[in-house]
Amino acid sequence: MTERADRFTTTDPAELLARARQLCEPGLRDALASLPEPLSTMAAYQFGWCEPDGTPTQAGWGKGLRAALALAAATACGSNPTAAAPAAIAVELLHNFTLVHDDVMDGDRLRRGRPTIWCVWGIPDAICLGDALHASAAQILVTWLPNTVAADAVARLETATAELCRGQSEDYAFETRSGVGVKDYLAMATNKTGTLMGCACALGALCTGADTATIEALDTFGRRLGLAFQIVDDLLGVWGDPTVTGKPAGADLIRRTQSFPVVAALESKNAAAAQLSQLYRSDRPITHRQAARAAADLDAAGDKQATQQQAQQWVSAALAALPEQMAASDLITLAYLVAHRDW
Amino acid sequence: MTERADRFTTTDPAELLARARQLCEPGLRDALASLPEPLSTMAAYQFGWCEPDGTPTQAGWGKGLRAALALAAATACGSNPTAAAPAAIAVELLHNFTLVHDDVMDGDRLRRGRPTIWCVWGIPDAICLGDALHASAAQILVTWLPNTVAADAVARLETATAELCRGQSEDYAFETRSGVGVKDYLAMATNKTGTLMGCACALGALCTGADTATIEALDTFGRRLGLAFQIVDDLLGVWGDPTVTGKPAGADLIRRTQSFPVVAALESKNAAAAQLSQLYRSDRPITHRQAARAAADLDAAGDKQATQQQAQQWVSAALAALPEQMAASDLITLAYLVAHRDW
Repeated sequence: MTERADRFTTTDPAELLARARQLCEPGLRDALASLPEPLSTMAAYQFGWCEPDGTPTQAGWGKGLRAALALAAATACGSNPTAAAPAAIAVELLHNFTLVHDDVMDGDRLRRGRPTIWCVWGIPDAICLGDALHASAAQILVTWLPNTVAADAVARLETATAELCRGQSEDYAFETRSGVGVKDYLAMATNKTGTLMGCACALGALCTGADTATIEALDTFGRRLGLAFQIVDDLLGVWGDPTVTGKPAGADLIRRTQSFPVVAALESKNAAAAQLSQLYRSDRPITHRQAARAAADLDAAGDKQATQQQAQQWVSAALAALPEQMAASDLITLAYLVAHRDW
Repeated sequence: MTERADRFTTTDPAELLARARQLCEPGLRDALASLPEPLSTMAAYQFGWCEPDGTPTQAGWGKGLRAALALAAATACGSNPTAAAPAAIAVELLHNFTLVHDDVMDGDRLRRGRPTIWCVWGIPDAICLGDALHASAAQILVTWLPNTVAADAVARLETATAELCRGQSEDYAFETRSGVGVKDYLAMATNKTGTLMGCACALGALCTGADTATIEALDTFGRRLGLAFQIVDDLLGVWGDPTVTGKPAGADLIRRTQSFPVVAALESKNAAAAQLSQLYRSDRPITHRQAARAAADLDAAGDKQATQQQAQQWVSAALAALPEQMAASDLITLAYLVAHRDW
């Protein structure tokens, strides 16, 4: 990373995210408004723009990190970030499609502090909405991009979708599988989280007419950054501040998630492993107190530090994938954000 | 329809379907094989090519009507049907995506006489497989078609998907809604079933480089034919021969489906309506004996005939949408099949 220090700018990551959300919002609103009812209202609810009855609100539609990556990739290719607006909108639509379906699959009742789509409208309509958002993502690309670019963009989007499905399926299989190793975890997390961030960067570059080598480099950057993002997510799922993350303390332990710290501890058979293994194998619900104790044990055994290091390593690997001469300051700012975020 | 009688050929509809299945199979197999595991095996199972453990079998993947429509549309445009192979494969992938998700939404346990995907692999993996098949459908179009055609093809495919989602959502809403009229039914069935057959015909034409007016005419033909198909489906759901349809006698009545004969009877307030309304509103399960009685009452009140007439009317409307000079014999053969099938 040292050779890249000169490229660090003072860009505020929050500004990059805010700019991405601002740039995408009109296109996203148009895309959702063009869906048939009741899907249009459901989609607007998912993006925090209305209540279930359609009353306008501003509940927020997430950080916009994937959109920001697409725009930053365009900047890195020497273009105005607005060139990548179709990519940014498409990846946020695709991301929300996966969230709506994941909430059904996982039975999650809250998303961004509000009842999930399936909780409000039921599982059938939630499946329909996810399908429609998936359709919208591809639709945006073929509507907004020139034909020569659109076909390649759709191919990348749909390849990413198949990989996302695989990652989600693997993650789900981990719940009932013992002996998940770090290698299995990394493959799953790359599919589940890395793929879409890689796709965001690749599509952002594609929109600018970048050559294949540049697009592939940005894809690799995004994939590795996405893996770092997931590992940080896992770190926050065990040791995050509930007032910042919006999730209960030790939420991932209570749910017996095969997250990075858990998988790494069990594989290394360190001081915290035996107790943790017993806790995960028990049939009884894990209490908040037990989760807090396990989190402290994992920290004492060095797993928190190992998780931080693993995330940092993937951020470094992501930065190493960037071509030497690239004006990558926005991408680097976002990479720094991913590694150091507390949300 | 009389002015079109001269265009009737002696083409065997079974031959058209067999040709379509044969032409699509290699491409379908390739598309499914390229999915990541476990989705690839699940997809092969859905298409009847293997058992859940991967052992090869030949359980059949449906009639291939949508593929046959795409090929027939290409023939009608003066091209070799093979030109429309990408369209045919894409619509069959899209169709199976909707079947996999519909089976989850409806809780259906059997499809083509075999346990449905969610019954074998669980709901989360079934949702993932549907998503991956949806992705494959778009992927086929951008991989196989020239860029100039691919973007338009994806736009049509994804517009159709959004409409399918709407139709599925409307159909689901009918279950808990009273006072569904014939007009509501026709709108729902057009979205749910007409859309994809319209899309199949339009994409088949698009693959041959047909002009927009021809593509739109074939889209209209397919939509109206799809509506006829759904009405015949509803007819068979009440009066079909269980040994041919593979569904129990009166299956749709037992499930309290708001199918065409039911909606039409209730709206017309005919002799069968009061009894049927009471049966549907009751909290108790409908027995086979009650369903058989209701089916007989509906027949006696003229609803079977009215349903047949409604289907025939939409077949005629479909044929009327075809341009005068078109060599439409294959399309007409398929239209005849839709109206007269007993499966």
